[in-house]
Parts: sequence; structure tokens; C-alpha cells
Amino acid sequence: MENLIIFGHKNPDTDSISSSIALAYLQTKLGNVAVPYRLGNVNMETQFALDYFKVSAPDMLESLDEGANVMLVDHNEAAQSMEGLDKCHIKMVVDHHPIAFTCSEPLYYYAEPVGCTATVLYKLFNKNNVEIPSYIAGLMASAIISDTLLFKSPTCTKEDKTTCELLAKIANIDVQKYGLDMLKAGTDLSGFTAEQLINLDSKQFNLADKLKSKIAQVNTADIDEVMVRKSEIEAAMEKELKDQGLEFGMLLITDIINSNSQVITLGNDSLVEKSYSVKVENHTAFLPGVVSRKKQVIPILTANVE
Amino acid sequence: MENLIIFGHKNPDTDSISSSIALAYLQTKLGNVAVPYRLGNVNMETQFALDYFKVSAPDMLESLDEGANVMLVDHNEAAQSMEGLDKCHIKMVVDHHPIAFTCSEPLYYYAEPVGCTATVLYKLFNKNNVEIPSYIAGLMASAIISDTLLFKSPTCTKEDKTTCELLAKIANIDVQKYGLDMLKAGTDLSGFTAEQLINLDSKQFNLADKLKSKIAQVNTADIDEVMVRKSEIEAAMEKELKDQGLEFGMLLITDIINSNSQVITLGNDSLVEKSYSVKVENHTAFLPGVVSRKKQVIPILTANVE
Repeated sequence: MENLIIFGHKNPDTDSISSSIALAYLQTKLGNVAVPYRLGNVNMETQFALDYFKVSAPDMLESLDEGANVMLVDHNEAAQSMEGLDKCHIKMVVDHHPIAFTCSEPLYYYAEPVGCTATVLYKLFNKNNVEIPSYIAGLMASAIISDTLLFKSPTCTKEDKTTCELLAKIANIDVQKYGLDMLKAGTDLSGFTAEQLINLDSKQFNLADKLKSKIAQVNTADIDEVMVRKSEIEAAMEKELKDQGLEFGMLLITDIINSNSQVITLGNDSLVEKSYSVKVENHTAFLPGVVSRKKQVIPILTANVE
Repeated sequence: MENLIIFGHKNPDTDSISSSIALAYLQTKLGNVAVPYRLGNVNMETQFALDYFKVSAPDMLESLDEGANVMLVDHNEAAQSMEGLDKCHIKMVVDHHPIAFTCSEPLYYYAEPVGCTATVLYKLFNKNNVEIPSYIAGLMASAIISDTLLFKSPTCTKEDKTTCELLAKIANIDVQKYGLDMLKAGTDLSGFTAEQLINLDSKQFNLADKLKSKIAQVNTADIDEVMVRKSEIEAAMEKELKDQGLEFGMLLITDIINSNSQVITLGNDSLVEKSYSVKVENHTAFLPGVVSRKKQVIPILTANVE
């Protein structure tokens, strides 16, 4: 029996929250004392899913005790994780991202190149012969819908879709109807200040090991609705780059209905222009078909950093 | 269908060779064109296993083409892998070591804190419903026997033992008898020069990210038989440290019958003394009960580097 602290990345999305809850459930069933935590505020999309399946949000993780046993879901890079992680025992990682990970003790590391951590987790439930209760299945399905934008993202694999459909059956939801409702719940950005908006789902990267960058993303059903706030958003981004010593910033405003993104970008226009063969004018450009930060932004920017 | 190049670490041991062959077999059954390779000479223990199960050694990997699809077994650190790996697509890692790995594309990463890669691979065969033929089972059992010193190493888990016994049944071998014969085949060191001897199973480490080190290990049924060549071995180690710009060198001479090691060490006596509460005299010390580089040497030295 082990005491386990389980969490996803900073600025948690639906996958990070749902997979923390699901892995904690699995570990509890395997005889451990496992508690899910979050590293930031719950966004509106995730809150919709939690409310729908009547699950409380995990508590905020305030600090990590030295020597704690932790499990990471949906991330592996220290920059996206909790401070003090290097003083903990990492027991397991379940993830679907590229790897930049160092750990001096052997551990369980399960990663697959699929669209969502929940898809990898689903196999762990099967492998351990643990039945998935309806509310956990609902959260896991929500995670897949969120990460794959209802199967429209290029990150979506056949396995993500099949797994989501199996989970939806257990959770008794109509994937298309529930999925669109959930995604739309995440697109009401009117209540956020510009500072909040650029931090709803943002991640820091050291692109090509040299360009300190922050790439944020918001989903919307109407790009124009966000772009009317462009100058306010730009000012917030500029302040953040300066305050955090970053060189490059990008906000993807992603149209979840038509699968395109408008970007607002600061610090390296030529990188964006070279990467996407577009012209950046007034710090903005339209990227047709681009919806996935992981698959269509990070690797392409990385390859084009000079 | 993918063309896959599969290999273990430099200075390959029985697990690296066997797991390369086994994973290539599995990938072939899954519809890919997969070829196992080795990154160095086959040692006598491994040759014994290959001969016993009538399997040819994999070809030596001479170079890696840019953009090749590769799978790694039994290692993940670039320093222990093939040059040019950073220009390849790493599709899968199957391993049981601590992780120091960076990869810009998502991939399959299966690691577990067990004693041998073959134990993790066994589950992959099951997961994919691929039957393990007798000769592959024999090689996989050999890998577990080798890595766990016939279950005596502290790295050995219950799962390693159970898996080895299941594999032995498929391969139709008596684990104890076959295992001791195989381990003993690896202990005849008389045919090697001192330079060869310190490179039979050696790995480079950057301990605590600052002490450039090489830790080698040989198995023997009689420590004295190796120690009569101490001055010759010391000279070879000294030359190697100098030539390769390393600061610390250690050779573990491991008694596989009684589970102890005599070490010959250069460059940092106080590190060894502090780590094991022993006195290093004339560059050598006896470490009772120490048989595992991974579990009883690297983490302890790392923790004691100043």
C-alpha cells in the first residue's frame, strides 16, 4: 500500500483533471491510498463535465512534501509540473506527449502516441481487470472529446475514437450531443480578463532548446468575438513575456466548429511566417486547418527555430 | 507497415540482444518489417544462450540513416545508444531503467520498475495476443536469468521470477540448471585482454550531472582469479579514463555464487568510501552483498557525489 499524489499539468485541461481522478480511482482499487489533485483553476469546459457527472473538482495541490510518492498524468516535463517534483519519488507516468523526462529511479512509464491520456488509461484499467464506473467513464470520454475536439483534431487516432465510444456507452451519453455541449461550454470567454484568457490553457516550452516560449490556446465558436479584444490581449501577452523573461509568445484562437486558428503572436514574426508560409500582419495571422498545439504547432515551430 | 530498426544498448548484454530479437519478432507478427541489431560484440554468456536456442546473433548496426524508424530496448539514454539517434524517429522504447530521455514526437514508451526488459516485453506479447515461440521464450528467459543473476539480484521482482518460469516452460528448460550453466559461460574471462575485460559490460554515466564516470562489471565464480590481474586492469582503466576524458572509473568484479563484489576504482576513492563505509586501499575494496550496478551502485554513488 502506498500513499499516492496524482496530478496533471499546470493550467489543467479536461484530460489532466479527468485522468487524475481516473488514475486515483484505479490506484485505490489496486489497494493504494491515492488522491487526485489539480495544479490550477478548473476551466469552464472541465467544470461542465464535472457537473454533468456530479464529481467534485480535485483539491488544489499547494505544495509537495519531500519524498512524496507521486504519479503524473498528461505531462512529463518538469516545467509543466509541480515545483519540488525533483525531490519526490515519481512512481508512474501515464501520458501521450513527447518526452523530456529524467528520473533517477526506475518507474512505470506508459505513453502512447494517441490523442488523449484517457485512451492510455483505459488500457490500464483493462490490464488490471478493474471495471470503470459510469462517472469515471464519463470523465474519461470528456477528456478524449476535449483533446481531440470531438475527433476532428489531427492528434485523434482510431483508438481514441473507439475508446471514447466504449466509454460513452458506459457513461450513457450521446458523444456528439454531449461533446458539442461540453466544447461550447468552454468557449464562453466573455467573463475573463485578457490576462486570464491567455492563461486558460497555456504551456511554456523551450523551443529547440533555445527559444523560451509560451504557447496558449483558447477554443471558440466565433473567432471574431475574441479578435475584437486583440489589442487588450496583445498588451497582456507583452507584459507576460517581459515579466517571465520569455522571448516568444503565441495565442491560438481555435474555431472548434470549422477547425481553423487565428493566432496572435509576439517576439518572432519570421518564425511563424517561415513555419506556416503566411504573412504576420499586426501580430496576427490565420492558420487554416491548424487546431492542435501538440501536432501542428510545437513540432513545426521547433523545426523552424534558427 | 513500417520498416523498423531495433536495438539495445552499447556493450550489449543478454537482455539487450534477446529483447531486440524478441521485439523484432513481435513487430513482424504485427505486420511491420522489423530487424534486430546489436551495438557491440556478443559476450560469452549471450553466445551460450544464442547457441543453445540455435539463433544467430543480430547484425552489428554500423550506422543509422537520417529519418530511420527505430525502437529501443533495455536503454533510453542517448549516451548508451547509437550515434545519430537524434536524427531518427523513435517509435517505441521498452525498458526497465531510470529515464533520461528527450523526444520531440509522441511515441510508445513502456517502462516498468522490474529487473529485466524481457519481463516488460512478455506483457506486450500478451497484450497483442501474439504467441511466443519456444526459441524466443528461451532467449527472454535467458535475459531475465542474466539481469537478475538467477533471481539473486535485488533488482529481481516477483514478476521477473514468475515470468521467467512461464517462459522456461515454453522453452522447455530447467531454470536452475540452464541458468547456472549460462551464467558460468559468461565468467570465463581468461581469453580477454585487460582492455577487453573492462569493456565487456561497461556504461558511461554523468553522475549527479557532474562526475563523468564509467562503471563496468564482470561476473565471475572466483574473484581471486580476476584480482591476480589487478595491476594490468588498473593500467587499462587509467588509460581509458585519460583517453575518454573521464573523472571516475569503477570495475565491479561480481561473485555470482556468493553475491558479493570486489571493486577496482580510480579517480575518487573518497566517493566510494563514503558511499559504502569501506576503506579503499590500493584502489580496491570489497562490497559485501553488492551485485547490481543499477540498484546498488549508481543511485548510491549519485547520492554521494559532492
